[in-house]
Amino acid sequence: MIILTAAMVTAGFFPVQSQVVEDFKPASSNQPGKAYPMVNSEGRVRAQIMAPDANYVKLDIGGVKYDLVKDESGLWTGESAPQDVGFHYYQLNIDGASVPDPGSMVYFGACRWGSGIEVPSDDQDIFALKNVPHGHVHEIFFPSASTNVSRRAFVYTPPGYTKELSNKYPVLYLQHGYCENEFSWPTQGYANLIMDNLIAGGKAKPFIIVMTYGMTNDVAMGGLRNFDIKPFQTVLTEELIPYIDSNFRTLANQENRAMAGLSMGAFETRLVTLNKPDVFSYYGLFSGGVYNADDLKEHKNLKLVFMSSGSKERPDGVRNAAAALQAAGINAVSYVSEGTAHEFHTWRRSLHQMAQMLFR
Amino acid sequence: MIILTAAMVTAGFFPVQSQVVEDFKPASSNQPGKAYPMVNSEGRVRAQIMAPDANYVKLDIGGVKYDLVKDESGLWTGESAPQDVGFHYYQLNIDGASVPDPGSMVYFGACRWGSGIEVPSDDQDIFALKNVPHGHVHEIFFPSASTNVSRRAFVYTPPGYTKELSNKYPVLYLQHGYCENEFSWPTQGYANLIMDNLIAGGKAKPFIIVMTYGMTNDVAMGGLRNFDIKPFQTVLTEELIPYIDSNFRTLANQENRAMAGLSMGAFETRLVTLNKPDVFSYYGLFSGGVYNADDLKEHKNLKLVFMSSGSKERPDGVRNAAAALQAAGINAVSYVSEGTAHEFHTWRRSLHQMAQMLFR
Repeated sequence: MIILTAAMVTAGFFPVQSQVVEDFKPASSNQPGKAYPMVNSEGRVRAQIMAPDANYVKLDIGGVKYDLVKDESGLWTGESAPQDVGFHYYQLNIDGASVPDPGSMVYFGACRWGSGIEVPSDDQDIFALKNVPHGHVHEIFFPSASTNVSRRAFVYTPPGYTKELSNKYPVLYLQHGYCENEFSWPTQGYANLIMDNLIAGGKAKPFIIVMTYGMTNDVAMGGLRNFDIKPFQTVLTEELIPYIDSNFRTLANQENRAMAGLSMGAFETRLVTLNKPDVFSYYGLFSGGVYNADDLKEHKNLKLVFMSSGSKERPDGVRNAAAALQAAGINAVSYVSEGTAHEFHTWRRSLHQMAQMLFR
Repeated sequence: MIILTAAMVTAGFFPVQSQVVEDFKPASSNQPGKAYPMVNSEGRVRAQIMAPDANYVKLDIGGVKYDLVKDESGLWTGESAPQDVGFHYYQLNIDGASVPDPGSMVYFGACRWGSGIEVPSDDQDIFALKNVPHGHVHEIFFPSASTNVSRRAFVYTPPGYTKELSNKYPVLYLQHGYCENEFSWPTQGYANLIMDNLIAGGKAKPFIIVMTYGMTNDVAMGGLRNFDIKPFQTVLTEELIPYIDSNFRTLANQENRAMAGLSMGAFETRLVTLNKPDVFSYYGLFSGGVYNADDLKEHKNLKLVFMSSGSKERPDGVRNAAAALQAAGINAVSYVSEGTAHEFHTWRRSLHQMAQMLFR
């Protein structure tokens, strides 16, 4: 029989797990019917997998590997330190093999299709699937002479698009980040549900969103150092935009066209809008650089510059840049996502904010 | 020094690997840039994974587990027996843990999102992504009062649909199998690319395909034994069809409506068409049951019964049933997919065949 005393507990006789709040629930990012991984109110991720003959199993999340512990049945269980609210890529490591967690849905990020986990946030309602009118996400393949293939894009059309055939709509071109792809915004980004909810609440004008693959020149292989905007700019401005304007009911002019992106997609947005000052009227940089007033001197039809950052990135950059642009007479806005870093919840919130300002 | 003789080889001194044809290539079903898994001209699947501290690694495919062998760097490699042409679900087993292969793309089948492999076939051209006009696959969420949620469906609209706004189209409702979902047909089934290629070749009339989740009453939990068609039939005929007819430009009548499905989806097709003889005019059962003439006595507007099977299933069933229906004056067709079993290549070929006969 073991007698416990308060002194023993506070003296650290118990392992770190005893400090974990035991209110874990299955993650919303799990495969249907899967109990693990779980998340608790502290944002800890608890993973579990049956691996009776393994020597060790680790949960690899946020750049840290956490040891799982084996029970007598061969089931390994363990949890991470608290994670920021929002979405994180992760994997399991079983005896040195890095593999997806069979409990998680699969998401493209970190240059791979792999596991992801949703840590609940108090504003996750912005991307909840509700009983409101829903737009459609079209998977399209558009011809691309410059790359000699049919290229994929996802096109969000707002509720009513397929019914009210006389309406025409503005368009936002929205780019993913480095080592993500065209699935990232409509999957872990929930761009479609964010829009459905905003439109249902009367908070955003209905518009089309176009999401395509931005790493046209295989930048994944060469690294960002060798990044050349030309191949993607050609696909976007000479192939994709004309295809969208001829296949969807768009308002096909600068005043009704926006471009935004996250991280590398912000970098691309900045380069494309600076190279092509007559194509877009709304610019959005989510966690990726800023404009200065000199950059934008020739931008006659500019309606909005939106720059955002997680509070755990370097938020003063976007705040200062927006203030400087405002001083130069440019309609610039900065947005800081509280409690998040360089991750998708920052960018969902950024889209949610920017969408309310577009095409007004 | 080891001296090899033909006698030693034929006497089996060498392990089974020495009989493997060394013309492996990365599978088309791999993640971008991933070399493994590979497939050779015999249809063997070779898996490889780094797992330096593992006790064993197995490739689990087609109901058989094949041992991988470790090299001095910790890299495990091994291959399966020859597999049928087409698409197979598989997984890796690392020290008792069944996990997805990080080299493979992810597909929903076997009740999970996991690995799949494409074994090349001499007719894989039917679903190749070509430089032809492409239709769109719309992800939609339709309201469902009977299940009290917004339900997902994928809707293929043929090339030109978004442009030629005066055209109206017939509709095929196409169902997945047991432990698959609404992603299965547009992903490993390539329903959209099969149609794009047929339409480009003038071999099929342009029509819409609607693919939704068919396991409405959580049959995955209860098993097929407890299957009740009512919940799904309600969603399909009272909620989805009206939504499609009011949100897409359909020819909204029986003569321009077809239903087909694979395996459990064929079972559902048979039950729904028998319960609702005035909704569809074209019936397709892919690897899942047959109709007899008595079943169809009251079906006044029946244009086609299509029944198919892999040659490695029991193909005489569909052949005999079609002959009996023909003898009763019903336009019935059987199709047998050569060299395939109860797997997706049988069903891609079935769609490819049936699509050419629809709405003529």
